[in-house]
Amino acid sequence: MQDYLLSEYQRQQAARRAPAYQHLRRTLQHAIENGSLTAGQALPGERELARLLDLSRVTVRKAIAGLVADGLVLQRQGAGTFVAERIVKSFSALTSFTDDLRARGLDPKSEFIERGTGEVTPEEAMALNLSPGAQVVRYYRLRTANGTALALERTVVPQAILADPSLVENSLYAAFDKLGLRPVRALQRLRAIAFDAEQARLMRLPEGSPGLFIERRTFLDDGRVAEFTRSFYRGDAYDFVAELHTE
Amino acid sequence: MQDYLLSEYQRQQAARRAPAYQHLRRTLQHAIENGSLTAGQALPGERELARLLDLSRVTVRKAIAGLVADGLVLQRQGAGTFVAERIVKSFSALTSFTDDLRARGLDPKSEFIERGTGEVTPEEAMALNLSPGAQVVRYYRLRTANGTALALERTVVPQAILADPSLVENSLYAAFDKLGLRPVRALQRLRAIAFDAEQARLMRLPEGSPGLFIERRTFLDDGRVAEFTRSFYRGDAYDFVAELHTE
Repeated sequence: MQDYLLSEYQRQQAARRAPAYQHLRRTLQHAIENGSLTAGQALPGERELARLLDLSRVTVRKAIAGLVADGLVLQRQGAGTFVAERIVKSFSALTSFTDDLRARGLDPKSEFIERGTGEVTPEEAMALNLSPGAQVVRYYRLRTANGTALALERTVVPQAILADPSLVENSLYAAFDKLGLRPVRALQRLRAIAFDAEQARLMRLPEGSPGLFIERRTFLDDGRVAEFTRSFYRGDAYDFVAELHTE
Repeated sequence: MQDYLLSEYQRQQAARRAPAYQHLRRTLQHAIENGSLTAGQALPGERELARLLDLSRVTVRKAIAGLVADGLVLQRQGAGTFVAERIVKSFSALTSFTDDLRARGLDPKSEFIERGTGEVTPEEAMALNLSPGAQVVRYYRLRTANGTALALERTVVPQAILADPSLVENSLYAAFDKLGLRPVRALQRLRAIAFDAEQARLMRLPEGSPGLFIERRTFLDDGRVAEFTRSFYRGDAYDFVAELHTE
């Protein structure tokens, strides 16, 4: 590993005139992308990297800060810097948060921040194709896997579909399954955001951390809208993948 | 507009106990999402909002900072705060940056930061299915529309496919078209990032601004990989949409 870093760093440096921290950052990025550094692996310490490559610790720190911003590595207080283990999620298949994580051998949980019923807001009525005055069930959940916060999720379901908020324990899709309801299609919209102070506190992340905002409307096989969900995923945990075709 | 803001703000405030800036933020967010405030429209001034809703200017500023972080509004020096005009791009159809923007009546351009040929790196060889030693054409472009920076894009193409870097003026896909090459399929991977200092300077954005990193490998109808592209899109300009189906 150390040999690889040294030779790759020298190659990077010879290739182009750019600040030293950029060379180091690219070297580490390539090492992660080509698998020389694998998910969960610890990076050499700051001091060790500085000595190996004959760089100042400020330069090493700057390079690593860039990798943190890109979500390629995670810093754990007192333990060091590790290559991020990313969850790869399809942006074309409709799958459940709980099933996705179980399939990876993780233990997904929902912590309820809010749970209740109420009258539909004008915005929710539009999203769910409901009339004004209709009743809805609302969840605001922190989604975790093995104790790590992965997403904040606000879900609204027509009460005509889900009679009682307590029907959802961890997974909305498990509740749909029990009721014999089949979500078959969803429309999804995604954009980049920075976590605000309140969200960052709930997610135990620094304010301004990069995240993905995903809005989803899910349809049942009878055409009804079953779910209107707005999720905030942490940027350093998720990759979304899709296959694209010409129209 | 002012009436709507006042009544919606009072509704929000009655609904839940949360800091005043959160109520205002949600009020403005709803106004944008339900179309009461439309793309390109100016928000009332800070002073006016503070007076209308009987809030301090600090509170108003904090609410607007949250909307900026979410990419819902843009601040233009000296001109005020405007509802962001977002470009909606499909995450399932393979389309060209240039065609996407022309279809919206915008004027897309490429500014070349780097352009040249070289020997394939190990990482590029893997992505492009090339043997070590093969030659590639490389572009590093700032993609703009009507003078606004929208993305930074690094593209690598086998020289066996694109003989000369100068074949691309603005659009890679226009060059493919001229050569009679047909990209038919792409594999795409997306994640949230924060722009680093160098990227932010090129994009004329504050360092740490939210963005989307998209990696794309595009295939020709004969199965060859035509393109390996890594793009950084600004978060306040793009929404990605897709339709999902159960597998």
